[in-house]
Amino acid sequence: MDQDPKLAEKITEEIAKRLERSKSDIPVGISNRHFHLAQEDWDALFGKGTEPRKFRAVKQPGFWAAHEVVAIEGPKGRIDNIRLVAPHRAKTQIEISKTDAQIIGLKPPIRDSGDLAGSTGVRIIGPKGTIEVKEGLIIARRHIHFHPLEAKAMNIKDGEVVRVRAGINGQRELVFEQVLCRVSDKFSLELHVDTDEANAAWLKNGDNVNIV
Amino acid sequence: MDQDPKLAEKITEEIAKRLERSKSDIPVGISNRHFHLAQEDWDALFGKGTEPRKFRAVKQPGFWAAHEVVAIEGPKGRIDNIRLVAPHRAKTQIEISKTDAQIIGLKPPIRDSGDLAGSTGVRIIGPKGTIEVKEGLIIARRHIHFHPLEAKAMNIKDGEVVRVRAGINGQRELVFEQVLCRVSDKFSLELHVDTDEANAAWLKNGDNVNIV
Repeated sequence: MDQDPKLAEKITEEIAKRLERSKSDIPVGISNRHFHLAQEDWDALFGKGTEPRKFRAVKQPGFWAAHEVVAIEGPKGRIDNIRLVAPHRAKTQIEISKTDAQIIGLKPPIRDSGDLAGSTGVRIIGPKGTIEVKEGLIIARRHIHFHPLEAKAMNIKDGEVVRVRAGINGQRELVFEQVLCRVSDKFSLELHVDTDEANAAWLKNGDNVNIV
Repeated sequence: MDQDPKLAEKITEEIAKRLERSKSDIPVGISNRHFHLAQEDWDALFGKGTEPRKFRAVKQPGFWAAHEVVAIEGPKGRIDNIRLVAPHRAKTQIEISKTDAQIIGLKPPIRDSGDLAGSTGVRIIGPKGTIEVKEGLIIARRHIHFHPLEAKAMNIKDGEVVRVRAGINGQRELVFEQVLCRVSDKFSLELHVDTDEANAAWLKNGDNVNIV
């Protein structure tokens, strides 16, 4: 059989990289439904001159869950007690699961955080007012956060797409394809999935998964 | 390199089998929460001497969804409008998703249908009475139903465990590992997943998946 010796070299290199990566445990962070607010939407929902109050830290540095919650409403129903994640952002963004979307009767797209153009509008009900946002309702695309040092150790580049094996040897073992890697010095190593994905793979917060 | 010639033969055979299998589309059937009743539990919930009324057929021959619904209740909450699937069985069985289980605050195990020993108890509320079953609440293990002719065509044996790829090239593409194959002349080709699994893989009823 004629073979390009460079091909064997490249494949060996790729396999070595994958074997090395697969040794690193990645902790899972499950994103329950939550939202981020633009300042003007905060003012309309919670009242001008007020500020969100910290409820607890989340794993990604600088972000925190607030005491404040809202309801969202669509043509088929309403979901209460959706928690604010602060600090505020340039644009209001509401992240829910497909299960949630079916409850309220809307069809938000799967999007990366911040990619909101043409996403779904929704009614948001706060203690001081109700607003209708024209876009901002999304189902977050699963992704892994890496600090640059973690990315370097695992030979990962920002924007790379990988496969992640979860629940090894359990009855709900599965492989998530198309997992986006995001690298930033504001990040800490964590796979973010939503509640549907976590429940499908029988994952709980802090469980470990591996790139394969 | 010394190699067992039988090994190459076996691997070639296995790969040929997998390539052949992967060409067959398998339609997806999403199991929403539902329940099956033993006659005595029907009597207690809906009244002795009454019969379930057919709402619509389901894909598996001989089974049908009934008009009758119940609520179930656990320590954290209640879920209404859970639909009966008839005809009755020897034992009462309630199939919910992990998302549902979190709503009511119970921890049912993942089980094959009918394997109820030591599963979770729950309160069931019907129009004519309320019962407390000691076991019967489960999260169904995903599985594929095959008619024997379909199993033969795809070289599948009853009890075999396979991998299923879903949502090819989409952002929610994934591979379900540990999928049980069940073969019976009462079955018709269908992958059964629950709503968490369907939503994680962005599947709707009738979408096609493949064994890989």
